[in-house]
Amino acid sequence: MMNKESYETILTDIFSRVRKKVPVVHHITNNVTMNDCANIVSAIGGSPIMAVEPNEMKDIISFSNALVVNIGTLTENKINSILMAGKYANELNIPVILDPVGAGATSFRFEAVQKLISEIKFSVIKGNMSEIKTLAGLKVSSKGVDNDTDDNQGDIIVKNFAKSLNCTICATGKVDMLSDGEKVILCHNGHEYLSSISGTGCMTGSLIGAFCGVTSDYLLAAVTGISVMGIAGEKAYESLKTDEGIGTYKLRIFDYINLMSMNKVNMKGVVRVE
Amino acid sequence: MMNKESYETILTDIFSRVRKKVPVVHHITNNVTMNDCANIVSAIGGSPIMAVEPNEMKDIISFSNALVVNIGTLTENKINSILMAGKYANELNIPVILDPVGAGATSFRFEAVQKLISEIKFSVIKGNMSEIKTLAGLKVSSKGVDNDTDDNQGDIIVKNFAKSLNCTICATGKVDMLSDGEKVILCHNGHEYLSSISGTGCMTGSLIGAFCGVTSDYLLAAVTGISVMGIAGEKAYESLKTDEGIGTYKLRIFDYINLMSMNKVNMKGVVRVE
Amino acid sequence: MMNKESYETILTDIFSRVRKKVPVVHHITNNVTMNDCANIVSAIGGSPIMAVEPNEMKDIISFSNALVVNIGTLTENKINSILMAGKYANELNIPVILDPVGAGATSFRFEAVQKLISEIKFSVIKGNMSEIKTLAGLKVSSKGVDNDTDDNQGDIIVKNFAKSLNCTICATGKVDMLSDGEKVILCHNGHEYLSSISGTGCMTGSLIGAFCGVTSDYLLAAVTGISVMGIAGEKAYESLKTDEGIGTYKLRIFDYINLMSMNKVNMKGVVRVE
Repeated sequence: MMNKESYETILTDIFSRVRKKVPVVHHITNNVTMNDCANIVSAIGGSPIMAVEPNEMKDIISFSNALVVNIGTLTENKINSILMAGKYANELNIPVILDPVGAGATSFRFEAVQKLISEIKFSVIKGNMSEIKTLAGLKVSSKGVDNDTDDNQGDIIVKNFAKSLNCTICATGKVDMLSDGEKVILCHNGHEYLSSISGTGCMTGSLIGAFCGVTSDYLLAAVTGISVMGIAGEKAYESLKTDEGIGTYKLRIFDYINLMSMNKVNMKGVVRVE
Repeated sequence: MMNKESYETILTDIFSRVRKKVPVVHHITNNVTMNDCANIVSAIGGSPIMAVEPNEMKDIISFSNALVVNIGTLTENKINSILMAGKYANELNIPVILDPVGAGATSFRFEAVQKLISEIKFSVIKGNMSEIKTLAGLKVSSKGVDNDTDDNQGDIIVKNFAKSLNCTICATGKVDMLSDGEKVILCHNGHEYLSSISGTGCMTGSLIGAFCGVTSDYLLAAVTGISVMGIAGEKAYESLKTDEGIGTYKLRIFDYINLMSMNKVNMKGVVRVE
Repeated sequence: MMNKESYETILTDIFSRVRKKVPVVHHITNNVTMNDCANIVSAIGGSPIMAVEPNEMKDIISFSNALVVNIGTLTENKINSILMAGKYANELNIPVILDPVGAGATSFRFEAVQKLISEIKFSVIKGNMSEIKTLAGLKVSSKGVDNDTDDNQGDIIVKNFAKSLNCTICATGKVDMLSDGEKVILCHNGHEYLSSISGTGCMTGSLIGAFCGVTSDYLLAAVTGISVMGIAGEKAYESLKTDEGIGTYKLRIFDYINLMSMNKVNMKGVVRVE
């Protein structure tokens, strides 16, 4: 079992590679937060691209380093674009990240995401615990796009589901739980304020995309993405003065991620369970 | 006739219920300001959701507490989604709010909004005075999505139109005029700077949606929504320093609405006319 | 050859007209940055409108002072709307501005933009040097939506392409190069930080649209638009304190453009070459 220092060294390396390589992160994402997702990829040092037309998916994938798929504001048309882009990314060995926003909220989304998982090989699936449990066929007690309460069986659920799909699963919550089916990693960074603004979940998916674009260790790429957002969320909260609320908070997230250097930050509580 | 204090007590109650109940506010809205609308619902304490696919409308309505319909960037496809969601919301007795953005700007929007009003029972229709007059079949002297000059017959227009549709009508302008067809309420909060940024009108519709999700008195819900935006608009303007313009102004709107507690604010000039 | 002072007088005049006339700038633009584009038009003093439905294009063009077309997140449907709006704008002599985002990134976009150029008479085409070279049929050495390195033949490329299309061409880069086919103007304002956030290119197109809405000298309108963004980009950078990154930077762009008065700013290095 690696210690905290070993992790920080590895993650710092993954982190710094983004600014050197400037990976192209293609998004087929929801219309609500696409501006946020583009800017967070820019903030971390990557190059975002967004497109929806099925006819240009192959061309874009051919020069992308990662594909991020987010099913918020999903439509029938977008499913076609995702399938086209995802399959071609699989052919070219380009990592594909899935954010199953509100997977359990409607049958349409649930069926769509089942179809996506059956036809595309995802490198990372990142959702809140409710979404992950929904995908794993487990019972969920929440409404809409909100998160389920933390589950004390969470790490086992995540590990088993990762094993069954042979991909990295990342379930966010008070503690973020990640597994590639063998290793389990728990991340303790973050702040509850992050869930009080729209888009932090989507942006975390984009960050994971950027890190998957520079390493083939997708578990550690996901840990890095989750940790970057968590750390920025803490720092942004600490910075708030009286009269500063979620407007300023969101702005600071962009500032801190943009200025972050991993060797200066404290990745508290990254715990590896084996 | 109630006095100012009585109103403030009622509105403060409606206001505080949002943070207790966290109403799910579903939006079928325009692509320009949907991120703003999601964040303003989060800021006030509600839970925003956005979706466009007709096939998931019923599922989403079934767990929503209000539906906000905004016809900016309207398309043929979206009209179908709105009809499906709106009718189902009517069946389930869930309030539906209409923001007829630019209703008079094009025949397409005018005909679409007439169709929506004839097939869906709206709880609140909120537009600027030009849009309301257009819907009421009156002559308007403005271009595009801008507002008509204030009309000294405004309160009568609003009351009559509210009566004819049996819904709450809310016409924004220098003075905001609201009526349920019997009572007329004039709101004097607000600042002209609010109209210098995109999205404040749309966000006001979302706030009204959040308040309609916690009370069946839709007139007072609309007054609360209008007042919250108006008060935040004043406070944000007062806060501006040299070198701070609409960028900072917009950010402060989110901050102040997020931090607002109604018992501390001055709802100036809410006047009830009978 | 005009000197710097003469230019500043002309540009200041164009600049001030926007706030007097409040031109309506219609956008058929990409979904990623449409909120930014709407707000930058508001910031400079114009009136933005966005619509996508082909059936309302004619109505909207009839009261617009400029049309801005941006091919980010282009779809087959949007091409139809652009053709409809662009041809009608040509009939009414309303200036049309094209931002060929990622024109070389996919065959779909390349073919679409060729079609648009063959069927619509554009007043200004503004892109980064890679995009302009792609449109001009020249070899480009870049990937995705990023810019080519500066080309020491840039001014000649821009002038020849402008002449062949009989429109103003504006190629952005370290030095911005503009030509109407006869005159060539080089603009030296700007800051590299502008390219580290999404949307500054799109917003520059919107600013050019606003200025084209108040003068028939589209070359100078484009110079004014380019300069306004460049100057704001410099000023915003200078204002950044420790711990302020691209979040704050973007907000300040809106603030400074909103508060800008051209007679107070230094348009450094506008050079006219003949």
